[in-house]
Amino acid sequence: MKANIIKAPTRFGLLLYPGFAPLDVFGPIQALTSLSYAYGDLNLTIISETLDPVYPGPPAVGVKTFWPVVINSTVSEGILPTHTFETAPPIDVLMIPGGFGGWAPAPILDSTYAFIKERYPTLQYLFTVCTGSALVARTGVLDGKHATTNKNAWDIVTPWGPKVKWVAQARWVTDGNIWTTSGVAAGIDGFLAWIEAVYPPEAATNVANGMEYVRNSNSTNDPFAALNGLTDANNSTNPSPKYALIVI
Amino acid sequence: MKANIIKAPTRFGLLLYPGFAPLDVFGPIQALTSLSYAYGDLNLTIISETLDPVYPGPPAVGVKTFWPVVINSTVSEGILPTHTFETAPPIDVLMIPGGFGGWAPAPILDSTYAFIKERYPTLQYLFTVCTGSALVARTGVLDGKHATTNKNAWDIVTPWGPKVKWVAQARWVTDGNIWTTSGVAAGIDGFLAWIEAVYPPEAATNVANGMEYVRNSNSTNDPFAALNGLTDANNSTNPSPKYALIVI
Repeated sequence: MKANIIKAPTRFGLLLYPGFAPLDVFGPIQALTSLSYAYGDLNLTIISETLDPVYPGPPAVGVKTFWPVVINSTVSEGILPTHTFETAPPIDVLMIPGGFGGWAPAPILDSTYAFIKERYPTLQYLFTVCTGSALVARTGVLDGKHATTNKNAWDIVTPWGPKVKWVAQARWVTDGNIWTTSGVAAGIDGFLAWIEAVYPPEAATNVANGMEYVRNSNSTNDPFAALNGLTDANNSTNPSPKYALIVI
Repeated sequence: MKANIIKAPTRFGLLLYPGFAPLDVFGPIQALTSLSYAYGDLNLTIISETLDPVYPGPPAVGVKTFWPVVINSTVSEGILPTHTFETAPPIDVLMIPGGFGGWAPAPILDSTYAFIKERYPTLQYLFTVCTGSALVARTGVLDGKHATTNKNAWDIVTPWGPKVKWVAQARWVTDGNIWTTSGVAAGIDGFLAWIEAVYPPEAATNVANGMEYVRNSNSTNDPFAALNGLTDANNSTNPSPKYALIVI
């Protein structure tokens, strides 16, 4: 009988597009960085349409958002890609952040969608944060899958994936090799859960403690669903949330 | 009688040095980004020794750390400074991350120390995350002040500031216009508390909810002090921690 040998992934790819949300990227990336100090041999490729620096930023004028956005600030940080869609090496785990830039109308992100569709069949895992899942939904890769996304942006972005089984009451959702998390900071919890699922048992705890991060370890404990008036009763295609009411 | 008009700071400076920790930067920066969408007119300057991209990374060979570090990974992200120490404009709030790079022996960071010493008297606020405070301690700016730092690194880095009143049981500490936070993720809690102290009352709550971040709002609730065997009884110069034992 042949043993199933599962090799933990070592080749990580971070997909960047203009207007990503900083913590969507650097929450999971901090966890990956800490993991890399403990386990070694991990590699991160930063992939974008071109090698130009990629900046977070407010939504483009005219893009509908969930709160009034002032766009006269200049708070942004240029991140350098290491590869383009054409030059990116093989990767095991593709990480996709959210952010207002991912809300751009066609054809702005067409090459980004094409890269995701092309690479998905070659991945061990796809990991999205925040509205990164809504961006992926536009490629069809999430069709028929359970997924979650940013709870503030829910009503605006979930229609981009009409065939996706959106789950509202979730800090993160897994379906096969696809991990999607709720908004921004939820990416940290989701990525720690992913580490826990894939690396040795102590890894996620060590990484979280090293980051001095108080984990939310229950994927269905999501206060931001209720805060935004979302329940899964709204969507009959979703599974029942697995939670227990605990009275203290 | 002259009214005291307090103008909220708008000019933020982020000090970067090679080997910063990603979340030390981008936790607070995400909060600042969200704040900037709501309040506008905020500006971020990214300041380093040169305009070359600045990368996080593992400690240099020979630097003593708090866990065995594997240094054969390549997980790092180049961030572009906007200004050098010589060209940086006036700033109201200087943000300083921690990270293994800040542990470098003299004279590697001498120009960084000089910039901090030169600018501190001109600031409205100094805000550090993680071992950023230990780096600042080396400049003398924290002498006689209460401050905290990373709890995993405590025993290694607090001796860098023998005249600092280090507080172990703290998610963050304020002393005058100086805010110091505990390790990595604590920077998010500390920066949200800073927003709460400086901006309109609803600002910090809106920013945290927009980030889907479950706040730790009590500055003395720090599980990572106990986890690392630290109590303030160890240090008679520190104030008594203000906490209540809650039995549920």
